[in-house]
Amino acid sequence: MYKLGEKITPDQAKRFAIETAKQGRGFVAPNPLVGCVIVDKNECFLAAGAHLRFGEAHAEINALNAVSDEGLLVGATLYVTLEPCSHQGNTPPCAKRLAELPIKKVVYGIADVNPQVSGQGLELLKLHGKTVEPFEQYQAECRELVEQHHFHVQHQRPFMALKVGASFDGKMALQSGESQWITGEESRIHARQLRGHYDATMVGAGTLQYDDPSLDFRDTSFADQKQNKIVILDPKGRACEDFQSKTLFEKHDAKNIFVLTREEHMQKWAKNLVHVIPWEASSRGWELALKNLYQKGISSLYIEGGSFVYGQILTHGLAQKLYLFQSPKLIGEGMSWTHYFKNGSLQEVPELKNWQSLPIGSDRLHIAYF
Amino acid sequence: MYKLGEKITPDQAKRFAIETAKQGRGFVAPNPLVGCVIVDKNECFLAAGAHLRFGEAHAEINALNAVSDEGLLVGATLYVTLEPCSHQGNTPPCAKRLAELPIKKVVYGIADVNPQVSGQGLELLKLHGKTVEPFEQYQAECRELVEQHHFHVQHQRPFMALKVGASFDGKMALQSGESQWITGEESRIHARQLRGHYDATMVGAGTLQYDDPSLDFRDTSFADQKQNKIVILDPKGRACEDFQSKTLFEKHDAKNIFVLTREEHMQKWAKNLVHVIPWEASSRGWELALKNLYQKGISSLYIEGGSFVYGQILTHGLAQKLYLFQSPKLIGEGMSWTHYFKNGSLQEVPELKNWQSLPIGSDRLHIAYF
Repeated sequence: MYKLGEKITPDQAKRFAIETAKQGRGFVAPNPLVGCVIVDKNECFLAAGAHLRFGEAHAEINALNAVSDEGLLVGATLYVTLEPCSHQGNTPPCAKRLAELPIKKVVYGIADVNPQVSGQGLELLKLHGKTVEPFEQYQAECRELVEQHHFHVQHQRPFMALKVGASFDGKMALQSGESQWITGEESRIHARQLRGHYDATMVGAGTLQYDDPSLDFRDTSFADQKQNKIVILDPKGRACEDFQSKTLFEKHDAKNIFVLTREEHMQKWAKNLVHVIPWEASSRGWELALKNLYQKGISSLYIEGGSFVYGQILTHGLAQKLYLFQSPKLIGEGMSWTHYFKNGSLQEVPELKNWQSLPIGSDRLHIAYF
Repeated sequence: MYKLGEKITPDQAKRFAIETAKQGRGFVAPNPLVGCVIVDKNECFLAAGAHLRFGEAHAEINALNAVSDEGLLVGATLYVTLEPCSHQGNTPPCAKRLAELPIKKVVYGIADVNPQVSGQGLELLKLHGKTVEPFEQYQAECRELVEQHHFHVQHQRPFMALKVGASFDGKMALQSGESQWITGEESRIHARQLRGHYDATMVGAGTLQYDDPSLDFRDTSFADQKQNKIVILDPKGRACEDFQSKTLFEKHDAKNIFVLTREEHMQKWAKNLVHVIPWEASSRGWELALKNLYQKGISSLYIEGGSFVYGQILTHGLAQKLYLFQSPKLIGEGMSWTHYFKNGSLQEVPELKNWQSLPIGSDRLHIAYF
């Protein structure tokens, strides 16, 4: 945190804009995360702001509102992680507001991909005599802030991330089926926190039957702050009968639960008052089901297993991101988390990109992209 | 590298002693790696030295020999990664030599575990009025320098490290058997370099038959510098018949090759003029075979697979260290590197310790201990 009037370098301002953007995590969808820092003509900190909740003010406006006197903006520089918007949405266009103010320069992280915005915000600012510059660093960080948004705007389906907890040797369970717990408590809390960064969590019917998870936010910063949506993949309708005895049913409103199942099992699920969405184990079946979820307001999906679900997502190439919590335990023979994913040759095997790895308790969290 | 007369802090001296010790990697066995830095009374760098080759001078002596004038040692401090030796071996005891010099202080990394040395070197120095202090940091780094030595002195068998190259999801090969290459070239070169840090490399008969490896040092700093020993685990004697057509036979002297096989297959191996050592797939069988290898001068063993060998080593709890090269490829269904390692419950599953992880090209190298 910087104090009003404190000296701040351009590099610090960029990094602080990125950190500030993260304040909106989990609450801005389907909008992107955006952070903004305003620095006066003497390179002193004036204000910061983030887009905090969908429907509320954008980052630039929150930062501007924190400036007590418009006179302070004369010659100021505004750092913003994403190109300012140029269209009327829930809120008026930010680029227009900025254009009218006496600020001198706008430094932006990345351009928007939204066709209603892309480049136009920057053009408007230039037309009004502002200097406009991109960040020269931190592109990857800025892209990460908007990854869910950019993906769903371009593809009209949810951004999907696999969350896996596995042993050092990639197993989710012993041969006996025992699986609790392979990863440590810090990892499990961290994984629940990440759950909050997504609109919805997906699990398979097997996980529901055997683990009876609550899939809630209990010990995270999202507890009592957010209702998450649940997607259940139940091809054969087998989780339907005793669903009302499950922890999931007790902890979540039925209106927040979405079941993907084959057409012939849809009817029997309806009695549980959840959303029931037709699904088939094919690329086309997935495409339709995901579009359906997207139309129902799910713009990002956090996939928590089990192995059949992972296999489906991998086989159909549906995920964009992977979180693997790797524990130091060596299980040996057991259930690999990629057991249901088949490849004929090394040439066709997918290769993860932008792989980062960090310690979490005695485990490691690997984050990578498909 | 520091220059003569350059200011050097105690922290820098310790770290430089550790780095200097590594110059002996691969050449000092069965001795430990040791590094030494001498700093004069004004905290200026005087000299550094390492134990470079078995049978040659110890680190302290090499450092002392680099000091041009004994007068410079008045009031000097000597930093050494391991307690100075106090017994006559191939070379005279270092502690005695140091005791006679006008140095003021000896700062050592860790105490020796060798009963002929432990604590005695330090006592001798104190008796001669030297200040003796342990490093307050870098214990783990100093222990790593002597891990092979300390283990074999205590257990009278080789220190053993598993080297594994696997996919992101822990597979050594696709279901089809295809396995070349899962890890990247940087990893494979790095793995060959690590091979040089050990007395011998172990592979199974399956690896020999299907991969026909050369197991040499071709593109590493050990090329033309060192002959490594090869241990082949061939329970059923199946690699015996066409052994002389293998690259391994062509690249290595038969006297550097050791075959572990069941008693009934020993005779047929003898014709290849290699060392043949009786082995059984039991704890007792391994114990005898490893003692035998140790008596033949193998004090450390680098185990390169395949999966049967890994399974044996894991099942009998024989390895001390693990190097896992994890690639960003996602193989899915295939051969897990721990396929032949069975555990009945999570309670009995081994948990790796002191896990470090670093990027190597587009892969990651995980180093951990059992």
